Parts: sequence; structure tokens; C-alpha cells
Amino acid sequence: MDLRSPAISQIINLWISEDIGRGDLTKVIFDNQTVSAYWVTKNDGVFCGGLIIKKLFKTIDPLVHIELLKNDGDEIKKGEKLLNLQGPNSSLVTGERTSLNLAMHLSGISTATSLLVKKLKGSGILLCDTRKTSPGLRVFEKYAIRCGGGVNHRLGLDDAAMIKENHIAWTEGIGPSIKKIRMSSPWTSRIIVEAETASQAIEAAEKGADGILLDEMDLNEIKSLVPKLREIANKSDQRITRNLVIEISGIDPKNVEDYKFSGVDLISTSAPITKSSWIDMSMRFDKKESY
Amino acid sequence: MDLRSPAISQIINLWISEDIGRGDLTKVIFDNQTVSAYWVTKNDGVFCGGLIIKKLFKTIDPLVHIELLKNDGDEIKKGEKLLNLQGPNSSLVTGERTSLNLAMHLSGISTATSLLVKKLKGSGILLCDTRKTSPGLRVFEKYAIRCGGGVNHRLGLDDAAMIKENHIAWTEGIGPSIKKIRMSSPWTSRIIVEAETASQAIEAAEKGADGILLDEMDLNEIKSLVPKLREIANKSDQRITRNLVIEISGIDPKNVEDYKFSGVDLISTSAPITKSSWIDMSMRFDKKESY
Amino acid sequence: MDLRSPAISQIINLWISEDIGRGDLTKVIFDNQTVSAYWVTKNDGVFCGGLIIKKLFKTIDPLVHIELLKNDGDEIKKGEKLLNLQGPNSSLVTGERTSLNLAMHLSGISTATSLLVKKLKGSGILLCDTRKTSPGLRVFEKYAIRCGGGVNHRLGLDDAAMIKENHIAWTEGIGPSIKKIRMSSPWTSRIIVEAETASQAIEAAEKGADGILLDEMDLNEIKSLVPKLREIANKSDQRITRNLVIEISGIDPKNVEDYKFSGVDLISTSAPITKSSWIDMSMRFDKKESY
Amino acid sequence: MDLRSPAISQIINLWISEDIGRGDLTKVIFDNQTVSAYWVTKNDGVFCGGLIIKKLFKTIDPLVHIELLKNDGDEIKKGEKLLNLQGPNSSLVTGERTSLNLAMHLSGISTATSLLVKKLKGSGILLCDTRKTSPGLRVFEKYAIRCGGGVNHRLGLDDAAMIKENHIAWTEGIGPSIKKIRMSSPWTSRIIVEAETASQAIEAAEKGADGILLDEMDLNEIKSLVPKLREIANKSDQRITRNLVIEISGIDPKNVEDYKFSGVDLISTSAPITKSSWIDMSMRFDKKESY
Amino acid sequence: MDLRSPAISQIINLWISEDIGRGDLTKVIFDNQTVSAYWVTKNDGVFCGGLIIKKLFKTIDPLVHIELLKNDGDEIKKGEKLLNLQGPNSSLVTGERTSLNLAMHLSGISTATSLLVKKLKGSGILLCDTRKTSPGLRVFEKYAIRCGGGVNHRLGLDDAAMIKENHIAWTEGIGPSIKKIRMSSPWTSRIIVEAETASQAIEAAEKGADGILLDEMDLNEIKSLVPKLREIANKSDQRITRNLVIEISGIDPKNVEDYKFSGVDLISTSAPITKSSWIDMSMRFDKKESY
Amino acid sequence: MDLRSPAISQIINLWISEDIGRGDLTKVIFDNQTVSAYWVTKNDGVFCGGLIIKKLFKTIDPLVHIELLKNDGDEIKKGEKLLNLQGPNSSLVTGERTSLNLAMHLSGISTATSLLVKKLKGSGILLCDTRKTSPGLRVFEKYAIRCGGGVNHRLGLDDAAMIKENHIAWTEGIGPSIKKIRMSSPWTSRIIVEAETASQAIEAAEKGADGILLDEMDLNEIKSLVPKLREIANKSDQRITRNLVIEISGIDPKNVEDYKFSGVDLISTSAPITKSSWIDMSMRFDKKESY
Repeated sequence: MDLRSPAISQIINLWISEDIGRGDLTKVIFDNQTVSAYWVTKNDGVFCGGLIIKKLFKTIDPLVHIELLKNDGDEIKKGEKLLNLQGPNSSLVTGERTSLNLAMHLSGISTATSLLVKKLKGSGILLCDTRKTSPGLRVFEKYAIRCGGGVNHRLGLDDAAMIKENHIAWTEGIGPSIKKIRMSSPWTSRIIVEAETASQAIEAAEKGADGILLDEMDLNEIKSLVPKLREIANKSDQRITRNLVIEISGIDPKNVEDYKFSGVDLISTSAPITKSSWIDMSMRFDKKESY
Repeated sequence: MDLRSPAISQIINLWISEDIGRGDLTKVIFDNQTVSAYWVTKNDGVFCGGLIIKKLFKTIDPLVHIELLKNDGDEIKKGEKLLNLQGPNSSLVTGERTSLNLAMHLSGISTATSLLVKKLKGSGILLCDTRKTSPGLRVFEKYAIRCGGGVNHRLGLDDAAMIKENHIAWTEGIGPSIKKIRMSSPWTSRIIVEAETASQAIEAAEKGADGILLDEMDLNEIKSLVPKLREIANKSDQRITRNLVIEISGIDPKNVEDYKFSGVDLISTSAPITKSSWIDMSMRFDKKESY
Repeated sequence: MDLRSPAISQIINLWISEDIGRGDLTKVIFDNQTVSAYWVTKNDGVFCGGLIIKKLFKTIDPLVHIELLKNDGDEIKKGEKLLNLQGPNSSLVTGERTSLNLAMHLSGISTATSLLVKKLKGSGILLCDTRKTSPGLRVFEKYAIRCGGGVNHRLGLDDAAMIKENHIAWTEGIGPSIKKIRMSSPWTSRIIVEAETASQAIEAAEKGADGILLDEMDLNEIKSLVPKLREIANKSDQRITRNLVIEISGIDPKNVEDYKFSGVDLISTSAPITKSSWIDMSMRFDKKESY
Repeated sequence: MDLRSPAISQIINLWISEDIGRGDLTKVIFDNQTVSAYWVTKNDGVFCGGLIIKKLFKTIDPLVHIELLKNDGDEIKKGEKLLNLQGPNSSLVTGERTSLNLAMHLSGISTATSLLVKKLKGSGILLCDTRKTSPGLRVFEKYAIRCGGGVNHRLGLDDAAMIKENHIAWTEGIGPSIKKIRMSSPWTSRIIVEAETASQAIEAAEKGADGILLDEMDLNEIKSLVPKLREIANKSDQRITRNLVIEISGIDPKNVEDYKFSGVDLISTSAPITKSSWIDMSMRFDKKESY
Repeated sequence: MDLRSPAISQIINLWISEDIGRGDLTKVIFDNQTVSAYWVTKNDGVFCGGLIIKKLFKTIDPLVHIELLKNDGDEIKKGEKLLNLQGPNSSLVTGERTSLNLAMHLSGISTATSLLVKKLKGSGILLCDTRKTSPGLRVFEKYAIRCGGGVNHRLGLDDAAMIKENHIAWTEGIGPSIKKIRMSSPWTSRIIVEAETASQAIEAAEKGADGILLDEMDLNEIKSLVPKLREIANKSDQRITRNLVIEISGIDPKNVEDYKFSGVDLISTSAPITKSSWIDMSMRFDKKESY
Repeated sequence: MDLRSPAISQIINLWISEDIGRGDLTKVIFDNQTVSAYWVTKNDGVFCGGLIIKKLFKTIDPLVHIELLKNDGDEIKKGEKLLNLQGPNSSLVTGERTSLNLAMHLSGISTATSLLVKKLKGSGILLCDTRKTSPGLRVFEKYAIRCGGGVNHRLGLDDAAMIKENHIAWTEGIGPSIKKIRMSSPWTSRIIVEAETASQAIEAAEKGADGILLDEMDLNEIKSLVPKLREIANKSDQRITRNLVIEISGIDPKNVEDYKFSGVDLISTSAPITKSSWIDMSMRFDKKESY
């Protein structure tokens, strides 16, 4: 989520357009005097969205100034102030809903991530996201995962190659697919195989996958498979691919602690995005304005 | 959600770009042969997204054909097939994630809406959404609300005017604001006042609001206030505004049934969007392809 | 016309591109020294466009400063100065034509509107526009209507629903159409029926239309129909729709005064847009520059 | 107006978005059955817009078919059919207003142009437009001028260079400006000088202008000046610029015939765009549909 | 190349997006402190790109300041400093590659142009480019041609008409084509005929072409043809077209001096774009920062 | 270069707009009859661009059909036919220049790449590109590199992280930078260090870089350094980073063979893009059309 990226500006403009449409009908009642307001959270959680909110308001009106009281990734407690805003009254009101929607949604994701990350503390296993993200919001939701202490998996189909169930069914299989993709991708791209069986995982390791995702596999099977896969990878004579990352998925987030000693590198889950609730926040006007 | 709208095409292209990036690295392993697949749901719920998914896949590749087995708004049961797909293998794989993400998210909203709508059955009260929607997805999420049996509130700041707490704090107040907005808006636009107290509600009714939103108000207060507001509105000599819609918000969705006999027209809640989980679905290749 | 809307910026950029193309060929002769100039009107009328012009010039060059001597909606007399400009000479010249084109066109519309509005003075009837607007210029032309004292009808097909002659011919008719649209539209959307006969108008009122447009109807028929329609609406038990707005159209603007006592709420006409001439203005350099 | 240009598609999409907004609220009442309709003109005039209308409807819905009964540039008489349409009822209704608005506006321009062109018949003088065009509609309005028998002046600031009053005031003057522009422009670009006095015109001819625009000049002065300018140009030793086009502007269109024997090449006027009314047309459903 | 043009901003954003993608992964290591750096050239040549680079960096980060030490078109020597930069370290690094790529490419073109221009010195013949330009970079590459001392041919298919071999093969031929194009183009547009034989060239002159391009013609044939063509043009009674520009192409750039006395006006060649190498430059951090 | 990507369509439209501008002035002379033509190469080389050209022409006119006689990556000999085209004459002419420009440029790159790749044959060393690409053309130029037998380095700043000279100068140095980037990047992203000295390279290997780029280093130094770096990497206990790719750059392409036994994995060079000439091709009409 690089706020200097023109693509981000384009998306922010799209969000503003979505809400303003042909024009905020209430704009006529405002005199554009400078007022001050603040945001407060109504739930505990992990804050995310402050930097984007600043850019969003600046896009609506460069005269709006925001002082962040919490950084992205900070823990927040019910009732705490999150940020102060100052600017023309009409602009604060026009940007209120879109900015709150974003921060409430992202903070919900950061919060849910943080809970899972804590459960894995000390295990050396990283909590990782997936490509199950709300269309149009991926870079933001993945940023929220990081703010919650998680790590990101690939950002898109171009960011690493993953050979999954349907890929295997419709092509020549794991070995030839790894070879073809290796030839045509940037050398920096990793190739991952999603394995549903031990034999698929072993084939992937033998053929030089950079990562193996063990999907919906039994814990005991995982435990016995991981050292075998690492051994195969270590012996590999394929320089680029000898290094192996092992990842599991398809786990009920409630049971994540059961996997602390599974020996894998990563647990990937979409739960912080697909099963979380928004953190409730609101924008309140400052009753005693003193300037 | 008018799929003929150029804005929808632009958003669909943005979603595709988000996932494809500089190109699906696995494309090289496919021979582009026509294959068939289907979608299956792993949860019960209310389906939403079929029509958009068709357009999404047509945008990626006009050779992909989709037969919808469920219509938007249909109830679906765990294990049921939702749709069949046929097309070049590489295109099915490239569109898989984005299309599932959308349908899983929207079906989660439809499902949550449907549960609340059922609780209000027979009361004559409509369940209504709010502007708390994921940035960039409003028309789609509001469509999911309708598929779940809810009705939509205004789609943006231009679709109706709502005078809220901050508006009141920063302007000349309810009466003058209604008057100014009425003069400068299309005559077709309704004006709503969000009232936090009975006296604000009464002022709004007297000054000719088209709608009054009673926010976080006690049930008994609502019950005594509603007939008063209707009486004031009936006496109004302001032709355009005599008709009054009364709406409540700020209710815990769990207690929605308590408000069945409150006499209001609408209960508005963001819960189906901010507190729902995705319906889990997956795309599976057809094992017995026969064409 | 909300100048903070990204859509407005996009359109302004499109206008500038239209004229600049691959680059103003005369730019090379300028030294970019700051000069001053002013606009003068060559006709009487009602001014419109000042705020947009400011944004247009700022988009071309942030160093251009404009002081508006007339506000949008002000009466202007032949020979009066409208605004002062100061900025790099090349930028004033590059923005000259596009900005004048816009202001001359919009002021022509405001002026024509104002003449009609004056004729209805004291009648309580509002002069309203239609969707007959120049493609790409609707929000601007509708703003010019307001600057001339008129009110706006719906801004697009989504802003209110109107059931017209072709709608009736190709669907199940007025009653079922109102019902279906009511169910699927935001509750804030009004539904209007364009009636060409008294019986259509009566059906519309009985079925709960929010507005009825009597198109090309005889004045006497209008006079006898209006009280009937109001009576039907008052008796209605459809809470949301009991309130009825009656509108007439298809009137020769020359005869608008004949309808002052017709009892309707609105007279809608496209004439200020489709039959008006531009107000002539020009940009002149300041002969005695003193800074 | 090259309909293959991506810029045209972008503008057509913008027009459609302008009217559809978040979706045509009446779409739900249609069954998408194929219906037929036609357009009829309510005024005499010169038709313009058929080809664009076809593309506009195809953009909304590829199933709409249009048979043009009149070509762009054809004379049309009140009551004549202009085109037949066939397609899904909802799509005809959704595209109706935008397409009619465009054709009515452009046909108004073609009609007004045609009247002036007829007055110059036999004189050898061409009627030419200016850059006074509605923002965003220039290529279309200039096309309408051609359909009415006029010729186009430059399409933008990059299409030819014109040195006007403000240019002269703010630079080193006519001679040096011609020289600098000649050096930095494509060799194919012509350079025109707008002269308000005879001496400016003579200087322009001497310095090698490709065209001279005599603005608001007295007819007698024009008559005496033209042969002098042609003589100067003929003697020029500047190969690229010896050829001179002489143009007049600032003429009241009513008096255009007075200038038939002025000896100039072109009369340029904005009147067909700034002072014309729309040609009234409507779309009617076919009462006897037989398919 | 008018940097005020919105189209230029759009292209610059596209360039930035191309490199930043979903975000510069190294951004996290920077503290955004202000640093200074400079550009140095590793080859001799003619500089081009300074003004665009300034706009490019301002687009990435308004806090970056650039002091140009060389103007576009200046000669540069290996080891010379070209510009100084000051700004947040992360922004300098993020814009480095794209800006260098552009300047190195354009300076390569300016340098190659300059070498050819010098060979024609004193001949009165101008060196001209063609439409053989890298897709998406035409206005920039044509600007580089001018910085190297060349002149531009038409910028696109709309900027002048050229009747080439395929045009002649697929239409009614030179004469009728000139006539039709003259009628439908802005009067300011020149019409050029690409002639492969003397008889085509003569026909073009007789029919009133504004320019004739003699393609891959023998030097002796050119020498004998040029005076004939000029004579025909001088006698022409077609006022707009009597003036003739003669251009040759298809020449090996090595032999350009052979054509110094050919009597033509222009030699057009794509070599500075299609056969040139980039000038090598690099951005270096200032070792002694002193602020 | 995934032709299904909406970003590619956007760029193709930008290329078409660049050349068509406000419309091909010669369009009026064509009758749109179907004609046939072919492309022929005037130089030997490696072809690139066929698939993009097909999409480009389909975008201009869906009626144009192209039969590729050479695949991207095929060797081509002077005089060989490359492809056949059939379609409306005006569309072939309008798309001619842009399509040729692209294929000539890309084939120049493929050809230059192929020559270098041949020199490394048998060495096991891959020839790799850099981020020195023409702005706006990166995915196409990198595709051309692959067609010539090279491999791609990262596609942008987000596709892998490279810590270069300026990064090191302006941050805490190699070790801390690797650590910070590892934490904030997708786990799939590789981290590369550009080392200018042996000690930097050794530090990079020790701190767990995935790749090391030895820039402008002496051959003997490279040879002694490579085994040391590999040994360090093998001992690493950092699972994700143990695998090391060693790359050299800054080599004069003429001497590439000297490095065949350097022991590195990759030689990266910008020469095929920055120092290559276009392959000359032309589109010719079919003299004997037989359909």
C-alpha cells in the first residue's frame, strides 16, 4: 500500500465519487468555517487506516488537517480518541462516512489478525493471509493484516505462481508445470504448489517448488511430512529451488494453537478478512472550539 | 446495480487488474482447451452475485459460458451446486478467485439480511441498510441487501439529504437547513433529519422533513413519539413534505423483534454488512467431462 | 455541481485536453510573465460559471488567480466587468476559449431561465428543467437553471423513476410498474408518472405515484383534473406515497403566464437549454498594468 | 469525428453514465422482450447524429439494431421518420434521452449552418466555424457544421496556430511570433494572424502568415485590403508561407450576403453553435409489432 | 509536448504505476529525511528530458526539488553534472529509474538528430522526423527531435493528411483523394502525397497537394523533378494549394550529405528514433551533504 | 504480458489515440471494402509482437482478421512474409503505423537478445534484463526479451526488493535493511543486494539476501567471490534465505563470452533495449486479390 502510487489515488477518487455522486445535497447549508472534530472508537481492537484517511481527506479538501493520535497497528481501547480533524465544516461532513467505513473495516481485520497472531506467539510460525479479499480492496486489506502482525502472501496472480487443484487437473501436472512456469517467469518469482496429498507434496519438493501449501491436511500427517519435505529440498541440485517454505491452510482459526509445533513456516487463513466484524468508530464535533 | 452502466465495467476491470497484475504467471501451462467446472456452496444461505459473475468472466474471456443454477436471492443449502462454467481452462482459473470473493462476500450479506428480515415478518416494518458499506462496493452490497429481502436507503450524499448531528452542530439548525436544501435540490430529493431527542424530531416534523431517523432512542420513547410526529406531518401545509417516513437506527440486531410494534416504517442497520461472515464456496473441475 | 467531486475534475481535464490537444502551438512565444486581464459581457443577462472557471484555470496553472466581480446568479449588464484574472500570459491565453465557452453557454441558460421564472412570479409555481440537456454537460446546465431561479427535476434515471409513454406501452402498465419500482428502489426515490390522458393521471394517483406529469394537456383539462388528483392522493392509505406533486410540460414558453392559476406545483420545460443563445463575453488584456 | 477513436468511446460512456447514474430505476419493470420503435422529427432541418446514435445504443446494449432512414446531412421535414430501432425494451428506454439529446442538438447546428451556407452559394466563399463550441462536444459540433455544408477551422490550439489580440499584446509582436512558432511547430501546421487593423494584416502578410483573419472590419476596408494582401503574399520569398488564406469574422449572420463579393476565402462564425435551437424529435413505439 | 496537458499527466502516472506496481518494497527502510543527489552523464551528447523529469518527480512527491544544470537541447560532455535533486530519500529512490530511463532514451534521440542536422548545415534543408515512434512516446520523442535541431512532421493521422502507397492502391487515386480530403478536413490541414514515381509526383503537384514526399528516389531523378514540381505549383490556380513543400525519405542517414544540393525542403528520417542508443546517465548521492 | 489484462487494453487504446488523434483525415477516401495485405521483413532477426498486433487491430476494427505466419520468438529472414491481414481498407491503413512501430521495436529487442543468448550457450548462465526499459513499454519489452531467449528480472519495485548503492547510503545499511524489508514484504518476495565490493557481497550473503548482484566487478574478483558467497549461503540458518542467486551486471555486451565460466547464475544487461535498432518491416497490399 504505497500511497504515492497513482493507482491508490484513482481508487480513493472512486470511493469519493461513490458517496458524493452528483454532489452532497447538504453542502448548501454550510458556511465553510473551520471547525474541529475527533474520532473515537466504540470497541477495543487494533487501529488501521490513519494514513489512508489523511490522504482521503486531503483529496476532498486540501484545507483539512488531521493529527493522528494512534498509529496504524496500535492497540486501541473503547472510548479512546483516535485522531483530531480540523477543516471546513462541509468537507469534514462530506468525507466522514467514507473515511470511517474504511478505517472501521480495516481495523476489524487488524484486530482479528492480532488475536490469531498472539495464539502463535513463540512458535516461530507466521500467520499469513490469502487472496480471499474484498474485490477492489486487496492492497488495503493486506496492509491491515500486516498492521495486525500477520505477513502477506502473494498480492496477485503475477506476484508468485501457485499451482492449485484445478491447475493440476487441467495441465500436464506438477513437474512439467513447475518447469514451464520457471522458464517464463521473472527469476525472482517463487513457485508454490498446493498439495492435497502427501504424494503431491513430495512430488512438488522433488521437482523444485519454492513453497508447498498443505491444504486441509491432518495434523499428524503434517508432522510426519514436514521433515521429509525439508530433507528432499536440502538435497535438491536445483539451485534456485532448494529453499523450501512450508505452509498450511484450511484450518479452523479456533484451533490454530494446535499447530504451534507442526514444524511448518506459515499458517495461511482468510478468516481475519472473511469472518471479522468492523470496529465501530464515530466522528464527533468538538464542543468547545477554541480558535 | 445496473450492469449496463459503464461505471460497473470500469470497476470490474479494476478488480481483474487487482488480481492479474502484470499477468497470471501460470497462464503458460494451459493449452486453452475448453473445460467445464461448477461452483458449490459449503454453507447454507442466500445466494447473491450470479449476474455480476457472468459479466466478470465475459470481461476476462468472452468464450467463458456460465449457466446459473441459482438466481440472486435464492436460498442455498450446503453442498448445492450454484452454477456451471465452461470455457478455456486458463480463463476459468484466472477468474476463479475474484469471482468467488465477490459472490462469497455478497452472499454473506444477503444471508445476514434475510435472517433479520424474517424476524420482522408480519410487522409491516421494512429492514433498511445504511451508508456503512465497504468503499468501492456500495452498489453491489446494497444489491445484496435487496437480494436478502431488505430495502435500500439512499445510495449516496446526492440521493437524498440527511441532516445529522454534525450538520446541526455546524449550521443554523434543523429548520433553516431544511429550507435551504429544499431550494437547491432536485424537487424529487427527500430530506431526512436524524434526531437524537424527541424535541429535534418534533422540530423536524414541523419544519417539513420527508423522513425522520430516530437514532438510539428508547423503545417507549419511540412508541409515544411516532403518533405525535405523524399528526404534525398530517397537519402540515407544505405540500411537498406532508408525507413522513419514520425510521429507527442504532438497534442491536439481536433485539430487532422488540421493535415489531413500534409503529415505525423502517429499521435501518449496517449489521448485514459490518458484522456478517462470507458464505464459503468453491469452484471444482468436472471429473467426467463429456463433450 | 459539487466541485469537490472527482468526476468534475475528470470532465474539466477532458475539456482542457479537447482544446490543447498535443499542445498549444503558440506557447513558445510567451515568456510566462504575470499579466492581468478581465472579462466583460457584451449582452445583458444572468451570470453563471464563475466558480467552475476558477477551478478550470487552477487546473491549467495553479499560478492563475481569479477575482470574481459577479457571483453566479447575478444580473449583468452589457459592458460590465465580470472578473479579473492575473497569471502567466501563456496560461491566460491557453484557458481563454474553453472558459469563455462554458460561461457564455451557461449564462445563456441562466438568462433564459430567469425570464421565464419572472413570468411565474407570485403564482407559487416553480419553473423546472428536464433531462433534455447537452450530453456531458448535465450537472453544469442544471446548475445554470438554478442560477436563473429555476428548480431541478431529477438528475438522471437513478435519481427518481419516471414512467413514461414507452414504459407504459412495453410493460404491464401504471399500477404494476409503480409497485415493482417501489420494491426495488431506495425508499427515498420518488416515482412519477407521465400522463397523457386524465384517466392515466387518475390511475397514477390511485396507485400511489409521488408525482404526476401532465404532458401537453389542455389548460381547462388541467384545471379540472388537479383538484381531483389531490383529493385521491389525500385519501390514499399508502403512507409513503400520499403526497402528490403535479407538474405540467409541453407548454410553449411564450404562453407560460397562461398557466399561473392552473393549480399545479411545477412547470417543466427544456426551453432554457434547447432554445437559448449564448451570452457574449470576451477576455481583454489590461492596458495599464500596475504591479 | 472518427468513431474508431478510443476517445470517442470514452466520451460516449461518460454520456451514458451521466444519465444512468447508479442504475435506471425503471429497469425492473421490463421483461427485455424485443420491441421496435422509430424516431420522428417535429421540425424541418438538416439531420445529424445517426452514426453516433448507432454506436451509443450498441454501447448500452449490443442487441439493439438501428436502421437509419436518413443520412447525416440529409434534409428532413416535420413528421418524417428518421430511423427504426429494434431491441430489448429496457435498452431502448434507457438510451432514449441521451441519444435524442445528441441528435437534436447536432441537427440544430447542421440546420443553422445550412441556412447560412445557402446564402453564400455561388460566391466561392466557404462558411467556417470557430473554437466557440460547447465544452466536451467539439468534434461532434464541428462534424455537424460539416453536415450542414460548412467547413471546419482548426480543431484545437495544436491544430494550427492563431496569433490573436492578447498574443500580440503580451509578446514581441506579429513578426517574431510567426518566426518562433514556425520553428517549433510541425511543418504541416499553418499560422494565422487575427488582425484588427489594416496595418496588422499587412504586417502578417509580409511576415509570412499562412492565413489572415480580419476581425470586425468594415466591408469597404476588407475590399480594398484583400488584393493588397494577396499581392504581398505572391511576392513572398518564404516558400512555406507564400500561400495566403483570407478569412473574416465578427459579422452579424443576418448580413452574411453583403460579403459575397468581398474577395475573401472564408467567413467564420460561431452562430450555428451559439445561437441555434435544437431540432425537436421523439422516439415512438411501434403500435403494430409483428414478430 | 505541453506539460499543462492532462494527457501528459495521465501518461506520467502510467509510467510511475508501471514501476511502483503495488508499492516499492524498499520504502520501509527509509526515514524520509531530505537528502541531495545529482545526475551525471557517462556519454557525450545532447540533453533532453529535464522539464519532464521535474514534473515526474513532483508527481511522485511534491517535496522533491530539482535544479536543472542543463537545458533541454544543450550539449553535454561525459562526466558533466546535469541536475541536482533534493528531497525525501525514499522519493528520490522511487523516481530514479523511470526518470533516468526517459532522459537517457530522449537524449539518445536528440544526440542522433543533432549529428544529422550538422551534416545538413548551410543547405537550407531541414531534417524532419516521421511517425515511426515508440508507441505511447510520440510527443516526447518528437520533442527530442526538436531539441536535437530537427523539425517535426505531422504528429498524427489527424494533423495533416498523407496519401501513401496503400491509400492509392485502395482508392480512386491521387486526384480524387486530394479533392475529397480537402472538402472534409479543417482548412488548416495540409495534404501530402507520398510519390514513388515521377509521374505520381507530377500528378500530385497538378492536383494541388500541399506537400510531396519523394520516397526512395534516385538523387538525379530528385534533382530533375524538383524544379518541375515547383513550376507546376506556381502556376496552380488553386489558391489554398499553390504552395508546395518537397520532402524526401528512404535515405541512408550515412549519405545524408549527398542530398545537400537536391533542392528539396525537407529530409525526413526515422533513424534518430529507430537506430539510436540511449545516452548513459546515473543518479549519485551527494557525499558531503551540508544542510 | 497477459493480453487479458485490462491494463493492456488501456495502453493499446492510448497508442491508437496517439496516432488517430481527432480522426484519420484520409478516412473519407475509403469505401471500407475488404482488402488483403501482408507484412514483410526487410532485415533478419527474431520476430516479436504478433499476438499484440492482433489485439491492436481488433481494437481498431473487429472486422480485421490477421493470420500470423511467424510466431513470437521465431527467426525471420529478410524478405519473408510475417503475417497476412484482411479487413476494411480504411482500418488496415489506420492501424498500419502503430502496429508496425510496435513490432519493429520489439523485434529489434528480441533480435539483440538472441545474439547475446547464443554467446552464452552451454554455460548454464541465463541472460537477464533490467528495469532500464522505455517508459510505458516495460511489459512489452520484457516480453521481447523472453522471445529472444532471455529471462526477466523483476518487473517493478514491488516484484522483488533490490538494495542498491543509494539505498545503502541513505539507510542503516545492508543487514538492517534486509531485515526490515523481509518483515513487511509478502513472503514470496525475494530480496537482492547490489554489491559494488566483495565485502558488501559477503555481508549480503551473511544477512540472508536471496540474490546478490555484483556490479561492474572485475572477472577475477567475481571468480574468487562466487564460491565464498555460495558457502556462506549454504550455512545460513535463515530458512527463507539460504538459497542464493548470483548475478553480474555492468558488462560490455561485446565481452559477454568472457564470463561464461564465472560461476554466476545470471548476467543482466540493458543492452538489448538501450542499444538495439528496430527491425525494418512494411505492410504491402496484395496485388492479386482473389476472394
